Amino acid sequence: MSCVFCAIVEGAAPAIRIHEDDDYLAILDIRPFTRGHTLVIPKRHTVDLTDTPPETVAAMTVLGQRIAKAARASGLHADGNNIAINDGKAAFQTVFHIHLHVVPRRDGDKLSFAKGMLVRRDSDREETGRLLREALAQIDTAELD
Amino acid sequence: MSCVFCAIVEGAAPAIRIHEDDDYLAILDIRPFTRGHTLVIPKRHTVDLTDTPPETVAAMTVLGQRIAKAARASGLHADGNNIAINDGKAAFQTVFHIHLHVVPRRDGDKLSFAKGMLVRRDSDREETGRLLREALAQIDTAELD
Repeated sequence: MSCVFCAIVEGAAPAIRIHEDDDYLAILDIRPFTRGHTLVIPKRHTVDLTDTPPETVAAMTVLGQRIAKAARASGLHADGNNIAINDGKAAFQTVFHIHLHVVPRRDGDKLSFAKGMLVRRDSDREETGRLLREALAQIDTAELD
Repeated sequence: MSCVFCAIVEGAAPAIRIHEDDDYLAILDIRPFTRGHTLVIPKRHTVDLTDTPPETVAAMTVLGQRIAKAARASGLHADGNNIAINDGKAAFQTVFHIHLHVVPRRDGDKLSFAKGMLVRRDSDREETGRLLREALAQIDTAELD
């Protein structure tokens, strides 16, 4: 299998899962800019904004918004988030299965953010995943109330 | 009026419009990272991802996808695009009326992109706007065929 995200969707490659439903997966980026850097991936393979249905782009972003809210509510204590889709190699896309980045940010983290873009590691990925899953579950419960 | 994007929506502040409908406006960023850097703005004022309805976030992104496609098809000859929402001051948000960035990219433009992030000007904004509007109209016509 040549697409690493399709391999993750199939369970043939490992990933720390934040969310999964019938059509979408959210996983921790293996080389995070910041702690909690998450990728939202549609299970059905498309490449970029030229071939992905608008309803998929919409659903990816709505899930990204929920994860951004979870990052703020979570033990990661995010004060904000960068949401991004890199559409094409010219725009720094490196895996050619469309995905949306959610990058949790903290007030005054500019320097550590810049460092994170170079170093790109999280020393406790399992705990990061647990904190985000826990906050997502809390958001879902709050919305059901 | 304290919100510059609300002032633009009302017509009280100038902007080069790429698209307008009942609920959304797309305008050229006054300090573009690259030529064609566009902002998608909901007309109804909300601040960030914490208070913006999911259906608005979805519609902003779908319009952003259309503009990204138009940038590729246009005389700007984009090879890709960065799509981004900066959610909160910690994430570099500077205007506190939610907006989505579409930043057209060219193959091999890394250095001029980095320069553009510092210089942030377009010497022919009117022509840039015309090229994007023209390409959007062509995309709409193609979809109706």
